[in-house]
Amino acid sequence: MTSFIANQWYVAAYAREVGRTPFARTVCGESILFWRTNAAAVTAMSDRCVHRRFPLSEQPSHLVDDTLVCGYHGFTYGADGVCVAVPGQRRVPRTARLRTYPVVEQDSFVWVFIGDPALADGARIPRAPWLDLAGWTAVSGREPLAARSSLLVDNLMDLSHETYLHGGYIGTPEVAETPISTRVDEEAGIVYVSRRMADAACPPFYAKSTGITGRITRWQDIEYTPPCLYKLHSRIAPVGVLPNADGSDPDAFHVEVVYAITPETENSTHDFWAVARDFALDDQGVSDFLAESNRTVVMQDVTALNALERVIAGEPDGYQELSINIDTGGLAARRMNAKLAGR
Amino acid sequence: MTSFIANQWYVAAYAREVGRTPFARTVCGESILFWRTNAAAVTAMSDRCVHRRFPLSEQPSHLVDDTLVCGYHGFTYGADGVCVAVPGQRRVPRTARLRTYPVVEQDSFVWVFIGDPALADGARIPRAPWLDLAGWTAVSGREPLAARSSLLVDNLMDLSHETYLHGGYIGTPEVAETPISTRVDEEAGIVYVSRRMADAACPPFYAKSTGITGRITRWQDIEYTPPCLYKLHSRIAPVGVLPNADGSDPDAFHVEVVYAITPETENSTHDFWAVARDFALDDQGVSDFLAESNRTVVMQDVTALNALERVIAGEPDGYQELSINIDTGGLAARRMNAKLAGR
Amino acid sequence: MTSFIANQWYVAAYAREVGRTPFARTVCGESILFWRTNAAAVTAMSDRCVHRRFPLSEQPSHLVDDTLVCGYHGFTYGADGVCVAVPGQRRVPRTARLRTYPVVEQDSFVWVFIGDPALADGARIPRAPWLDLAGWTAVSGREPLAARSSLLVDNLMDLSHETYLHGGYIGTPEVAETPISTRVDEEAGIVYVSRRMADAACPPFYAKSTGITGRITRWQDIEYTPPCLYKLHSRIAPVGVLPNADGSDPDAFHVEVVYAITPETENSTHDFWAVARDFALDDQGVSDFLAESNRTVVMQDVTALNALERVIAGEPDGYQELSINIDTGGLAARRMNAKLAGR
Repeated sequence: MTSFIANQWYVAAYAREVGRTPFARTVCGESILFWRTNAAAVTAMSDRCVHRRFPLSEQPSHLVDDTLVCGYHGFTYGADGVCVAVPGQRRVPRTARLRTYPVVEQDSFVWVFIGDPALADGARIPRAPWLDLAGWTAVSGREPLAARSSLLVDNLMDLSHETYLHGGYIGTPEVAETPISTRVDEEAGIVYVSRRMADAACPPFYAKSTGITGRITRWQDIEYTPPCLYKLHSRIAPVGVLPNADGSDPDAFHVEVVYAITPETENSTHDFWAVARDFALDDQGVSDFLAESNRTVVMQDVTALNALERVIAGEPDGYQELSINIDTGGLAARRMNAKLAGR
Repeated sequence: MTSFIANQWYVAAYAREVGRTPFARTVCGESILFWRTNAAAVTAMSDRCVHRRFPLSEQPSHLVDDTLVCGYHGFTYGADGVCVAVPGQRRVPRTARLRTYPVVEQDSFVWVFIGDPALADGARIPRAPWLDLAGWTAVSGREPLAARSSLLVDNLMDLSHETYLHGGYIGTPEVAETPISTRVDEEAGIVYVSRRMADAACPPFYAKSTGITGRITRWQDIEYTPPCLYKLHSRIAPVGVLPNADGSDPDAFHVEVVYAITPETENSTHDFWAVARDFALDDQGVSDFLAESNRTVVMQDVTALNALERVIAGEPDGYQELSINIDTGGLAARRMNAKLAGR
Repeated sequence: MTSFIANQWYVAAYAREVGRTPFARTVCGESILFWRTNAAAVTAMSDRCVHRRFPLSEQPSHLVDDTLVCGYHGFTYGADGVCVAVPGQRRVPRTARLRTYPVVEQDSFVWVFIGDPALADGARIPRAPWLDLAGWTAVSGREPLAARSSLLVDNLMDLSHETYLHGGYIGTPEVAETPISTRVDEEAGIVYVSRRMADAACPPFYAKSTGITGRITRWQDIEYTPPCLYKLHSRIAPVGVLPNADGSDPDAFHVEVVYAITPETENSTHDFWAVARDFALDDQGVSDFLAESNRTVVMQDVTALNALERVIAGEPDGYQELSINIDTGGLAARRMNAKLAGR
């Protein structure tokens, strides 16, 4: 038995990654092949030929129009995974078909459904509209993480680590010092963690990109939709500047930080990260700076979490962590994931 | 318990590899040391000193005439594996002897018997005479394969893969299209697979080496003697040219492709390959071309089979393949090997 | 259950290695962090933060005066391992403390006690005074060994291997030829092995460092105090020159070779080696020569023992070694270690 949470949608790729060259990505331990038909539809199917297991992502496997030809013995499959030709005989066995996966393009991501396909339609795909929306611009990437996905969830649910692990980037003393409020919406299946700093230093990260020179009012509102999608609604404004009574907020800078946390194997994770903003939309210098800075921050996390995975691999069973107030959100996320996993 | 088939002869090396510098090769999980005596006899013995396990293939272990001196504490062994000297005392314990292996030089190979040595004489060593025979010339090599030996047997028993994996080398469309006939000689313990193409394109491989410019009659007659020796009797002739009634066949080109498939460990294999021909005997250009081309083809298989091994390592138990007509020979080979293994 | 011998002192580092930059070393499977307080006291504590396991040896963890700040969320510990600050709240949980280890600086080493700290005071720390004593000078180093510690004990207890593995360095034919005498002091828990060569070739090692040109009287007196400390009292003198009746020995050269054999994991070892001498004290050329030569000899052992570890990893259970007279000391050491381990 695996620890993966079945019957859920996961981000498998950025839409921009999927084209006419099939490529495989492992999601929840399953190697899945992605490619686009001539009509630009995304297909997702098992990466393993039904005949002798040859990976269909491996050379010299290749597309011929909307069919996929296995590079070992030439078994040929349609976009629906059904085998249409085999070598040395005219009759194609009826059971010769690749497993296909429900797949949806949305918000710049390719989502894939892991589990019983009959349950795909009824399962939610959480939204991250700013990644593909007028009035916003985004930078994004994907980093391989040699650590279990739960360590990345822990990491993101408790941003007090910004002060220490990301000091000089997005961390300032106020992040660790300011208490959080946590709310769990059991019905909607969402964990909210909020940290609102009324008067904080402006980290270089935001000073450079917004042009603010003094201290700021800084809001960090986390919204985690287990298992895969994490959003950090980030609001930066000069000290004391609050949204208007009608909800409009013209004098603040808004950053939507989105993570898709997709298990690759039991002990490795695809760390998709995207940062959208509603300011300096056409300023390539700001985009370049944020892309580089965010990637640096992501890699600081990757290095730390890879170290944690090695620690866990070497420790005796039954090791007990110690949790404090800052962990309330992370512990809620763990409970919700355990419930989804039927544990 | 291992999956190795015991009480069988396996190819351990080319005769040319064994000389006065002892070297170790692992066969069926056993590390065996090979060297030649001053009289040029090949010896095969355990690579592990009886005292403290030091590998006798490891520096500074070395030969002194026909004795082998362990590089750790100087235990000294004769060509029969019996210890003749130990440090610090005159008496040599009677039980101090290395396990030796029955060994035979034949057809350019060094064969070693794995199992109960008392059964060695009664066990067959299949022949591949063309590798060391007047009127023939051969190119050969050995590639390490990071895959279980059964995957190489599968590969070689079904040559329809030539069309896809070796397209542009030895594959043409006719190979995959032409049905095979399979015959199993249970008594002799041989599997035969035959594919006879009456009118086929001549692959560049053979066009270059034979000088044939048009289409060809191409015969592929496989003869597999489990577990270790595989032969492909290959006949190329201009279209319509057949052997004479008396069996003579002066107007055809004959190529004998020989593989020795020797398990190294449960998941790795020595892939010995040799290609003998009865034409262009003294043409070094043809020899160079065939050596290079065949090695390229072997490496295409190695790359593919290494990928399959990784797939198998990652898949759940009980995965079912789908087999079709072209697999008849491969399935017969599996059955025969299972029988030899007592499964 | 592990094979480590608990409730014993082990050498964890040279004193010179421990300073104001915390560093971790794994001893008997436990990752331990070492650093010095402002008052230069050595501290030893668990390398794993009690909160989310972050290694305290990992950047950006760091010292602030005599407190250690975790680089992930800022948990802060005193030199006694007690947590003094956590993020986001004033109250520090009472259970928030790192495990600390009894630690002693002695004879240039940092010794750490593995096991129940209450037993530390009653457990012996064997001495190697020459490493830090007037009238002596020493060269030393530490090599990582990818082999279980018992293989290094075996190696050092039987110096007949010098003749073969270290020929041309410290080995000459007489070492392997000369019988040993072995004595086991069960009460004191020490194994003694003595080999006294009255008339032996002088190995280049000692010829170069002492200036002796002819043959020598060479004594090798081993004193092993399980599990960790091994001493070789080595005496070199011109042939026939013996100590005086009063024990004084002005015309001989004395070399004290010290090894600390500290298990890192079940299958890897810290190989601390030091060579002290009572001659050519201020001759940097001799020091350089001995440092380089001894390291070469140590690396010859490391290479050999790493090979043995690989052999053991691949061999079937129940493999039997063959032992002879030269192994008497090694077998006694094994028995004593098994007794300490409660086996």
